[in-house]
Amino acid sequence: MEIKKIKRSEDYSAWYNNLVKSADLAEHSDVKGCMIIKPYGYAIWEKMQAELDRRFKETGHQNAYFPLFIPKSFFTKEASHVDGFAKECAVVTHYRLKVDPETKEIIVDPDAKLEEELIVRPTSETIIWNTYRSWIQSYRDLPILLNQWANVVRWEMRTRLFLRTTEFLWQEGHTAHATQEEAVAETRQMLEVYADFAENILAVPVIKGVKSANERFAGAIDTYCIEGLMQDGKALQMGTSHFLGQNFAKAFEVKYVTKENKQEYVWATSWGVSTRLMGALIMSHSDDEGLVLPPRLAPIQVVIVPIFRKEEEKIIVMEKATAYFQLLKKQGISVKLDDRDNLTPGYKFADYELKGVPVRIAIGPRDVQNGTVEVARRDTKEKQVMSAADLEHKIPHLLEQIQANIYQRALDYRSEHIHTVDTWEEFMDALENKTGFVSAHWDGTSETEEKIKEMSKATIRCIPLNNPQENGKCILSGEASKERVLFARAY
Amino acid sequence: MEIKKIKRSEDYSAWYNNLVKSADLAEHSDVKGCMIIKPYGYAIWEKMQAELDRRFKETGHQNAYFPLFIPKSFFTKEASHVDGFAKECAVVTHYRLKVDPETKEIIVDPDAKLEEELIVRPTSETIIWNTYRSWIQSYRDLPILLNQWANVVRWEMRTRLFLRTTEFLWQEGHTAHATQEEAVAETRQMLEVYADFAENILAVPVIKGVKSANERFAGAIDTYCIEGLMQDGKALQMGTSHFLGQNFAKAFEVKYVTKENKQEYVWATSWGVSTRLMGALIMSHSDDEGLVLPPRLAPIQVVIVPIFRKEEEKIIVMEKATAYFQLLKKQGISVKLDDRDNLTPGYKFADYELKGVPVRIAIGPRDVQNGTVEVARRDTKEKQVMSAADLEHKIPHLLEQIQANIYQRALDYRSEHIHTVDTWEEFMDALENKTGFVSAHWDGTSETEEKIKEMSKATIRCIPLNNPQENGKCILSGEASKERVLFARAY
Repeated sequence: MEIKKIKRSEDYSAWYNNLVKSADLAEHSDVKGCMIIKPYGYAIWEKMQAELDRRFKETGHQNAYFPLFIPKSFFTKEASHVDGFAKECAVVTHYRLKVDPETKEIIVDPDAKLEEELIVRPTSETIIWNTYRSWIQSYRDLPILLNQWANVVRWEMRTRLFLRTTEFLWQEGHTAHATQEEAVAETRQMLEVYADFAENILAVPVIKGVKSANERFAGAIDTYCIEGLMQDGKALQMGTSHFLGQNFAKAFEVKYVTKENKQEYVWATSWGVSTRLMGALIMSHSDDEGLVLPPRLAPIQVVIVPIFRKEEEKIIVMEKATAYFQLLKKQGISVKLDDRDNLTPGYKFADYELKGVPVRIAIGPRDVQNGTVEVARRDTKEKQVMSAADLEHKIPHLLEQIQANIYQRALDYRSEHIHTVDTWEEFMDALENKTGFVSAHWDGTSETEEKIKEMSKATIRCIPLNNPQENGKCILSGEASKERVLFARAY
Repeated sequence: MEIKKIKRSEDYSAWYNNLVKSADLAEHSDVKGCMIIKPYGYAIWEKMQAELDRRFKETGHQNAYFPLFIPKSFFTKEASHVDGFAKECAVVTHYRLKVDPETKEIIVDPDAKLEEELIVRPTSETIIWNTYRSWIQSYRDLPILLNQWANVVRWEMRTRLFLRTTEFLWQEGHTAHATQEEAVAETRQMLEVYADFAENILAVPVIKGVKSANERFAGAIDTYCIEGLMQDGKALQMGTSHFLGQNFAKAFEVKYVTKENKQEYVWATSWGVSTRLMGALIMSHSDDEGLVLPPRLAPIQVVIVPIFRKEEEKIIVMEKATAYFQLLKKQGISVKLDDRDNLTPGYKFADYELKGVPVRIAIGPRDVQNGTVEVARRDTKEKQVMSAADLEHKIPHLLEQIQANIYQRALDYRSEHIHTVDTWEEFMDALENKTGFVSAHWDGTSETEEKIKEMSKATIRCIPLNNPQENGKCILSGEASKERVLFARAY
């Protein structure tokens, strides 16, 4: 491990890339736009998955699995959907390689061309609604509440590790309902699930809202979202939940017989979060020394580093270190005892800081004599000498404190970075000099939204839920407006 | 649910297909060769994943994730590997769709042709060893012990749900070691992990062995396997663990510096099991009424069916049923109380039999009076009246009994279906009339193996581990042989 240090204040983007690589989270592969998620990064993703999966099941959802490939003809059935995704589709056209009889090289066998091309799923609404047609006949078959954990592919020209990659991992929920009300309620419920997960597990405060028409999912009636604010003042869309109306039911002829014996189209939702959340996690809490992980997601919550020089010191220090390790492990804490003796304590300290381990316990010969340990917390870098007898009840409490502190810090940062403006000049000043969310009046038209985006590089992140109604004038057009919306430059 | 009943004795293959569909495990999709894993089937797969994943982690492995796509040039670097997979590769050639200016149809954009074609991974040795090159410099970087849960694609012409599908789900372990001994030990260790999982969780007895050269994984020095025997007398390869030698290290130039400061190629293993295990599970235990699930994999271990006609009966029955439900749930049993009142008890009984729920508890008004319940076990179909007071300690015990009984039954069946033969006539008679494994002498040549396969449709399933050495003559060529091997017709 050679750690190149880059400060956030110097170049946030370079700092991010460097951190992702040096903390062993992910790296670019030799396949354009595709990343390799390294074991430490994947362990964090697995913790996210477990927390999300539990919440999905508690709200009545089951997992299933649908094909990776989507026939082109399915993909084109919902007009706005294909518009949204056509430009970024990986297409399978052949199903065999062969040895070129002339050059002896391995080539794609021209005789093995598919009659119909297959799209590598960028999202699965089409293949799933094609399936629901045969699963749904009557109101008794509804609702269907499914989720899928899967890889998806969207051909991206400019990629960033975790934030925007050609292949990414995600979950996509796809539900079918008898009524509009029920589908809207599901859409909102899953938004709440995402917000709860983001705030209580990722420790990232989010704004819940609904997207403007321009920013909607291709095929949705309404797209709800949670938006986070990163340390560099840019917004990040962290999850979306779509009310799809009857669009996919109509495209795939999915009807059901109501209790009153009438034929009706089925109502749909879909919702997803992805490995992008890893980016949100990193850019919400980390510092110039490396990752800062919320204890609820940390693969290692506490690391114990024994300190000794002579062999006799090692024996007495390791005996205590092992006892504390067992003690904490018994309490269900994910604890690691780093007893490697080819590395210095200083090296280990830096490495666990880089990796964001929330609590470090150091113990040397003098600590053994005094019945103490040195406890350092990653978030504030505070150190304290703690009586070893206190470890058992103080460490779990400390982990909760760190979780809360990280969240509060991110919340304070965000609170300081929501700027209310009334003129174009104020708007541009806020974006350029203050960064963060800008709350401003907008005339509600796509044209104005588009113009603002061109002029300022800021997009409407969302119209917050329960947004106060307030008369005002659009910052660009001057037309009448009934509510403010949140703008930001975004990832 | 309309259940079409097919008996195993009539048409085993049709019985299998019908069971997979009617028990809601999986179905064919409209994408050729790809299946949809339905929620009930996926819940069983999730239980398998959890058991396997825990065993992988206990043996020191970590999960990671590598790209879905493999550049054609990587894929062709290990000669025998590409030979093995070239004929079944899905190939991505383009990355965009567009509207045809003339026909207005959506077509593959000819301007978006990839410079180098991408193969959808059929297995990941090549992309992973290309990565290991930069991860491994010194003996200190070894071993690398990784696993990946992923989807893979092998273009199959004839598919069967779970057993052989174009896309399937699996795990693939890929490890890198400093020495041959260590790599071989890893290969054998993972074989033991698979065997333990198969026997103790799936309740399927397996024979551990090594493959003949003809049946080896493309790129392996040795392929170890676990082989199960299905109810129709055909064998099923349930998992493989490959010792890859230095083949991939040489193909991808992965070297390390030894303690003695010499450059050496790294040693490799890979090992995998897939959704094919669902097929093994089904064909090992099920009967004409449907699935029989081992309790350790059953998403629902115990179902409680309340029986009542009048409303006042419902009240007293549901009160007790709910109390028993809570009682069993508290013990960590996965229990379901089916209180739907639009379905008859008879319908429910048949449905839970079809789904393989290990234990059914029925409770009616008379049971409430007597303080009893009726307990039916799925494996033997035995029913007993049990005092409700005994539920708490007897049900966990009964689940263990069922797990053991299912295993023993499969083991007895297999023991009766290993036939030792010494002549070609006996060999063919055993295959045709007795079915199962046939233990016979073989001269050790690929030619003879190939001929036997052509003539009998049987393949060498494996050379069992710790195979007794015994002089004999090859059943086909009459040449000298030093040990028997196991033949069978196989899936």
